[in-house]
Amino acid sequence: MAEGYVIGVDLGGTKLLAGAVGADLSVIHRTNRLVYGLSQDELVQMIADAMEEIRVAIGAPIEAIGFGIPCTFDSRTGMAVQAVNVPLKDIAFADVMTERLGIPVVVDNDANCHTVCESRLGIAQGATDVTLLTLGTGIGGGLLLRGEIYRGWINGGAEMGHMVVEMNGRPCQGNCPNWGCLESVASGSALVREASLAVARRPDTALGQALEEGRELTGPLITELATGGDPVARGAIETIGRALGVGITNLVNIFNPQVVVIGGGVIAAGELLLAPAREVMMERALAPGKDVVRVEAARFGPEAGMIGAGLLARDMLDGIVTGAIEARPPT
Amino acid sequence: MAEGYVIGVDLGGTKLLAGAVGADLSVIHRTNRLVYGLSQDELVQMIADAMEEIRVAIGAPIEAIGFGIPCTFDSRTGMAVQAVNVPLKDIAFADVMTERLGIPVVVDNDANCHTVCESRLGIAQGATDVTLLTLGTGIGGGLLLRGEIYRGWINGGAEMGHMVVEMNGRPCQGNCPNWGCLESVASGSALVREASLAVARRPDTALGQALEEGRELTGPLITELATGGDPVARGAIETIGRALGVGITNLVNIFNPQVVVIGGGVIAAGELLLAPAREVMMERALAPGKDVVRVEAARFGPEAGMIGAGLLARDMLDGIVTGAIEARPPT
Repeated sequence: MAEGYVIGVDLGGTKLLAGAVGADLSVIHRTNRLVYGLSQDELVQMIADAMEEIRVAIGAPIEAIGFGIPCTFDSRTGMAVQAVNVPLKDIAFADVMTERLGIPVVVDNDANCHTVCESRLGIAQGATDVTLLTLGTGIGGGLLLRGEIYRGWINGGAEMGHMVVEMNGRPCQGNCPNWGCLESVASGSALVREASLAVARRPDTALGQALEEGRELTGPLITELATGGDPVARGAIETIGRALGVGITNLVNIFNPQVVVIGGGVIAAGELLLAPAREVMMERALAPGKDVVRVEAARFGPEAGMIGAGLLARDMLDGIVTGAIEARPPT
Repeated sequence: MAEGYVIGVDLGGTKLLAGAVGADLSVIHRTNRLVYGLSQDELVQMIADAMEEIRVAIGAPIEAIGFGIPCTFDSRTGMAVQAVNVPLKDIAFADVMTERLGIPVVVDNDANCHTVCESRLGIAQGATDVTLLTLGTGIGGGLLLRGEIYRGWINGGAEMGHMVVEMNGRPCQGNCPNWGCLESVASGSALVREASLAVARRPDTALGQALEEGRELTGPLITELATGGDPVARGAIETIGRALGVGITNLVNIFNPQVVVIGGGVIAAGELLLAPAREVMMERALAPGKDVVRVEAARFGPEAGMIGAGLLARDMLDGIVTGAIEARPPT
């Protein structure tokens, strides 16, 4: 494996997480940025600044950068085509970044990066057929099929968050033109919405009290109070867990995966989320898929995407073709 | 390619279609059997009888038989595990058939066989990434990913007919424990149901008159009258076409396929079905997948499964490993 440092970047709908990854895969410097409300130009500038911050902080050359961004791609042109939850559209992201930073760049969908990490180092290690969902602001999807990341014909696929599960359901969020997507019923945003509706009916609860005290209604707050036993918070997690179970049912019937990995911020809820999801899947999916699949929390939690992006950057240095989009500075 | 004849068999929820396929891939003897209402033993006997009929009719040795059956499989044991619309459950179908008939046998999901045919010889020729749906009694699914049939980890996947599109929808049919499956809103059975509901409100139509005259309400009747302009029949086809469009939206977002092929008996409705399906997909799916995909009728229509099963039998004779389940008589 190539020596020196790479940077792994995971861009989500709410924040960017980046870190320098050494040859031993340890992460030595992390940085976080909020991305909400930026224009495309501001977002690109912020990302370039974050890369520069890490480069200065570690005081050693950066050999390559791997980006996981929540977009579909067109591998024929290298463009990031559409993003639901970040302001990126029809941008040659790899070219733009390598030009700004003068470093080789590899770009993949963020959930694909999670899948790279969890299948090589994490909970799905050794499995050949893996489906992964990242539950955050939105829902990202990653596929490992026959041991290789599957991105679709031109890298526009694996968007399982935008699988319709309620054909006459509510409009999806961000730039998604669809409605009734899994993202609209099982994401972190859906969790906050469910808790918000429920607490309005039951303000006499720990969650109601927290809001009364001025705390913001967020996924982490809901998880914290659910873990402490608050019924409204628990109920909201169970509701999206059951909706997640419908999505997992679809993944089991379509892919017959060995492992379904659930990552992203919402997985902090752990078994409060996964137990109802598994129950629904066992009730609704077909045999033998339902009986052989493992439904597991991501081992690397919210860092999986960053580490996976770093792994892709290392692959690029090692000359391994992964199918992700690459760009190199002119020599 | 091996000389001599093979038999290709396509088993659906309503009927069995089988034919002897020559080395030039021409079909020289076809037979049809109704399967409705049989027990597993009766079904196995009926299939064995149909094979014997063809063997006698062509008066030449049969080198192998390929079966497309609407089941999930466990490739570790060779078992056909679960079928929604035919009475097959936990049966070592390939072993049973090769023992009865004394001929090498290869068994795959029926929609996979359709996919083999359409991707090698039909509308998806040359494409590497194809998703296929067969619309008949139920809905079967087939996947060609990176040029190879994808069956899931242990051959239990590609059941896109049992992808939930209405999480609180109606119970699915047959042995499916699920509800709101694509099969429940876009199959031939759903078409008959929609037409039945609509004609009850509008008996003063060509469809109402046909029923009055004692004709049975079937998919072919609905298609015939829709082609002739009957508004109730057209409306029913459009309704399931729009539901199909939701299913295709999911396939585009998940697989970013080059081609989506629609086969099975219901595709006789042609553009009356496909035009609304495409319209819904264009409205709901993400770019670039929605802009690059072709949504097409199967070229081989209802014979695609039979021919694909024959192709798998020829592959077996030629020693090509396809991933389908094989059995050979003891030597």
